[in-house]
Amino acid sequence: MSLASIQVVLVEPTHPGNIGAVARAMKTMGLHSLHLIKPKKFPHYEASKRAAGGESVLDSAQVFESLSDSLSDCTLVLGTSVRDREISWPTYDPKACAEMVRHHLDQFGEGGDARVAIVFGRESSGLSNAELQLCQAQVRIDANPEYCSLNLAAAVQIIAYEFRVALKQPRLKASANSLSMTEKRKLPATEAQREGHMQHLLSVLDDIEFIKSESPTVLLRKLTRLYSKAELSVEEVQILRGILTAVQKNIRSAG
Amino acid sequence: MSLASIQVVLVEPTHPGNIGAVARAMKTMGLHSLHLIKPKKFPHYEASKRAAGGESVLDSAQVFESLSDSLSDCTLVLGTSVRDREISWPTYDPKACAEMVRHHLDQFGEGGDARVAIVFGRESSGLSNAELQLCQAQVRIDANPEYCSLNLAAAVQIIAYEFRVALKQPRLKASANSLSMTEKRKLPATEAQREGHMQHLLSVLDDIEFIKSESPTVLLRKLTRLYSKAELSVEEVQILRGILTAVQKNIRSAG
Repeated sequence: MSLASIQVVLVEPTHPGNIGAVARAMKTMGLHSLHLIKPKKFPHYEASKRAAGGESVLDSAQVFESLSDSLSDCTLVLGTSVRDREISWPTYDPKACAEMVRHHLDQFGEGGDARVAIVFGRESSGLSNAELQLCQAQVRIDANPEYCSLNLAAAVQIIAYEFRVALKQPRLKASANSLSMTEKRKLPATEAQREGHMQHLLSVLDDIEFIKSESPTVLLRKLTRLYSKAELSVEEVQILRGILTAVQKNIRSAG
Repeated sequence: MSLASIQVVLVEPTHPGNIGAVARAMKTMGLHSLHLIKPKKFPHYEASKRAAGGESVLDSAQVFESLSDSLSDCTLVLGTSVRDREISWPTYDPKACAEMVRHHLDQFGEGGDARVAIVFGRESSGLSNAELQLCQAQVRIDANPEYCSLNLAAAVQIIAYEFRVALKQPRLKASANSLSMTEKRKLPATEAQREGHMQHLLSVLDDIEFIKSESPTVLLRKLTRLYSKAELSVEEVQILRGILTAVQKNIRSAG
C-alpha cells in the first residue's frame, strides 16, 4: 500500500478543531503525513480533542510558512476546490483523482520516490489562484448546488476514502482445503444440494396439496428463482430441509 | 435524482454536535430526510451550530422511540458496521451499496414508492445484532485496522457521497404509477411484509416443534439472513405465506 507516499496539506486552517478532525479522518483511512501552512492555532487542545485516536497524525504534523516549502519534494500536487475558476484547470472528481494518484505511484514502483500532496484551502475562501497554480490539477467534490460547503474534515474524509479504495491491495482468498468445518458450512451449496432441497420442497408441497392451486411449472420456476437469489449455503440447505422433514413428520403422524 | 427517497437513521446518538455535523454532511450531498431514534439531546444548540447550512435537515428531522417504527414504510434497509459479526450478514462496500440502492430505486421507477433507509449505530457501540436483523444487508467502510473509528458524520459523509455519485447519473425508467399489477407484484416487499412472513414462519416452526431443536435466536437470525439475501418480492412473500398457510391447515385439520 502506498498511502505512506501521500501528504495532506491544509492551507491556513482557522479552527483547531478542524485540524483534529482532519487528523482523525486521515488516520481512519491509513494516511499519516499532515502539513499545516500557517495554522491560526496549533498545537491546541481542541485539535487534540477532535483527533480522538488520530493523535499520532497530529504529533508528527509539520508546520510550514509557505505552501511552496511544503511541496518541495512532491512529484504530484493536487488542489481541492468547490469553486468555478476564471481560468479552467484540469479537474477531476475524487474517484478519478485517486486513480491518477495510483497510476502515478505505480510508475515509481514500490519503494520509489513518489510523493503526492493533496492541498486543501481555507475554511472560508479555499485556495487562491496563485496557490492553485502550484498544483498540477484540481479535484472537485460534486455537491448540492444549494449548499456545497463541506466541512474541511468531511472533504478530507472523502478524498482519503477514495485514495484508500484505489490503493488498497487485493485480498487473497483462503483455499477451501484450509477451511474449518464451520467455514465449510458457510460455503455455497452445490447444485446437487440445491436440487435436493427443491425436490424435498416439491414433495412437501404435494403432501399439503399446495401444488394444485397453481400451475406446478410456473410455481417451481418461481421458487427456484427465489432460492437462487438467496445463494444458499450448505448450512442453509440443511436448515431448510430440516424444516421440511419436521413438516412431513407432523403431517404423517397425524394422518 | 432519487436522493429524496433515502432516509438517514441515527440510532441513539449521544453527542448533539454529531447530529448537526450529520445534517451538514447530508445537505451537502443532497440528502434531506433524517430520523433520530432516542437521541440523548435533541434539539440542542450544539447540533444547530455544527449543522451550519444544513439547518433545514435538522428542522425536518423526525424523532422515534424505536428503530422498527422508523423503518415501517421502507422497501430497503441497510445497516452500517465496522465490526465483524459472529454470523455473517450480506456485506457491501459503500460503492456497491450505492449501486444496489440505485438498482432498487430503478425497479420502482420515478415517482415510485421506494423508500431506502441507511442506519447508523451508536458512536460507542454501533448497532446491536437485533437492530442489524432489521436490515437486509450491511455496509462496511473499509478502514485502517489500527484505527477504524470513523466519526459518525464522517461515515455519513462517505455513504452520502457514494449515493450522490451513483444516483446523479441520468436514469430512464417507467414510473411506478404506470406499472401493471403483475409488475407491482415483482417489486421488493416492504419491511412490514417481510416481517409478516418471518412471524408466520416462526409460528409454523413452533407448531411443528422445530424451534426446540435449535437455539431460537440463532435460528431466527439465520433464517432472517437467508430471506434477506433473497430480496423477496411482494409476490414471493405471498407464495411463501401461502405455503405456510397450507402447512398449518394440514397440521390443524389433522390435530
